Amino acid sequence: MRNFKLSLCYDGGRYKGWQKQGNTDNTIQDKLEGLLSRLLAQPVEVAGSGRTDAGVHARLQVCSFRAETALSCEELLAALRQYLPEDIGALALEEAEPRFHARLSCREKSYVYRIWNSTEPQVFARNYCWILPEALDIGAMEEAAALLGGEHDFSAFCANKHLKKSAVRNLHSVTITREGPELRLRFTGDGFLYHMVRILTGTLVEVGLHQREAREMPAILASRDRSRAGFTAPAKGLILWEVRY
Amino acid sequence: MRNFKLSLCYDGGRYKGWQKQGNTDNTIQDKLEGLLSRLLAQPVEVAGSGRTDAGVHARLQVCSFRAETALSCEELLAALRQYLPEDIGALALEEAEPRFHARLSCREKSYVYRIWNSTEPQVFARNYCWILPEALDIGAMEEAAALLGGEHDFSAFCANKHLKKSAVRNLHSVTITREGPELRLRFTGDGFLYHMVRILTGTLVEVGLHQREAREMPAILASRDRSRAGFTAPAKGLILWEVRY
Repeated sequence: MRNFKLSLCYDGGRYKGWQKQGNTDNTIQDKLEGLLSRLLAQPVEVAGSGRTDAGVHARLQVCSFRAETALSCEELLAALRQYLPEDIGALALEEAEPRFHARLSCREKSYVYRIWNSTEPQVFARNYCWILPEALDIGAMEEAAALLGGEHDFSAFCANKHLKKSAVRNLHSVTITREGPELRLRFTGDGFLYHMVRILTGTLVEVGLHQREAREMPAILASRDRSRAGFTAPAKGLILWEVRY
Repeated sequence: MRNFKLSLCYDGGRYKGWQKQGNTDNTIQDKLEGLLSRLLAQPVEVAGSGRTDAGVHARLQVCSFRAETALSCEELLAALRQYLPEDIGALALEEAEPRFHARLSCREKSYVYRIWNSTEPQVFARNYCWILPEALDIGAMEEAAALLGGEHDFSAFCANKHLKKSAVRNLHSVTITREGPELRLRFTGDGFLYHMVRILTGTLVEVGLHQREAREMPAILASRDRSRAGFTAPAKGLILWEVRY
């Protein structure tokens, strides 16, 4: 069996997220496994670096899979590019060492949350950002972001109520940059819980709107109580940006 | 009656073009006139700088209209932004001198045609470019473009077979630039005929594919025969880029 590392991008708008779910076939993983199984004439299972929610996009997602095939990486990549739907792009394919696993080997990931913070229209990237024209206090958001960075139990920022495994994650950095009317929140860490980036974003936006204060962050983290954190920002503004090994 | 100049952008993907057509209401002009007439409680007719075909986009389109209203430009612009569909953006609204007319006063327009010239995937801007991975001879395309510039009868590059008015236009410049995998053809001129930019693009691409030669251009122009020119490039790669007064 050869082991492959596949780099992808996708527009998540019409998918129910990355991960296959029983009997639907409308997830990115379903599309990939279906196509790879047909192309390679064997059942293929892919492991993603992590799940993305319904409607979330990926500038770079990485997955791995094992298969027996005489095809070269170039041939298989060309076939993937030919048959994948136009909203899923195969960026690169390479053979990986036998122990490589897209999720278990992953060292660090970055997500970017795009906010169109203006009353100016945003037509051409409207499906890839959250349109929020209200004035935001960026200084207060940066203060809150600094308090959220580091190693914490992020249960308060997780939508999964019955998490059995540890909710401790190391959020290496949260940076906020503005390019004209667009605000980008970039979250880099060793792993992310279900809805974590969207709840962090919603909470930071509430700070930016002066609906809550930056100094509340440590108490929210310590509470481990989802109801203490802010709301869940819309999926369409979130993009899995980078995956590092 | 006050006279207004409205600057717009739009994603033309789901519209039957700029111009209203009898009993449909699925054109940009229909959407604008319908909304302005409701907002201003009077029948409003808008004049665009020119028509765009079904599926063609505008980074900047300008239109003018006359109306009696006590609303300020700021108030009317805010109302337009609130009620226009998300794929039509109101960029600016100002009061114009009485004789200003978006089409008749227009001095020069630029269109950009975007070609994604790579086997690399193009996911996020896939609806705003023509995906054409075949190798193109840019030098030959530039040679042909230089022969098309200037004042000519462009009948050979017009899809309207029964044109009664003059088909003479001054194509001030055609430039071709490459940014990585993307090729941009920029056409600037005093006016454009029906399908003209798309037929010019199709013809230049045929030159780039070595299906015809740059030196044929003068004979095609002289023939005034549509069947001598190349095919019509797809609408989705074409963007009305600038309108100058």
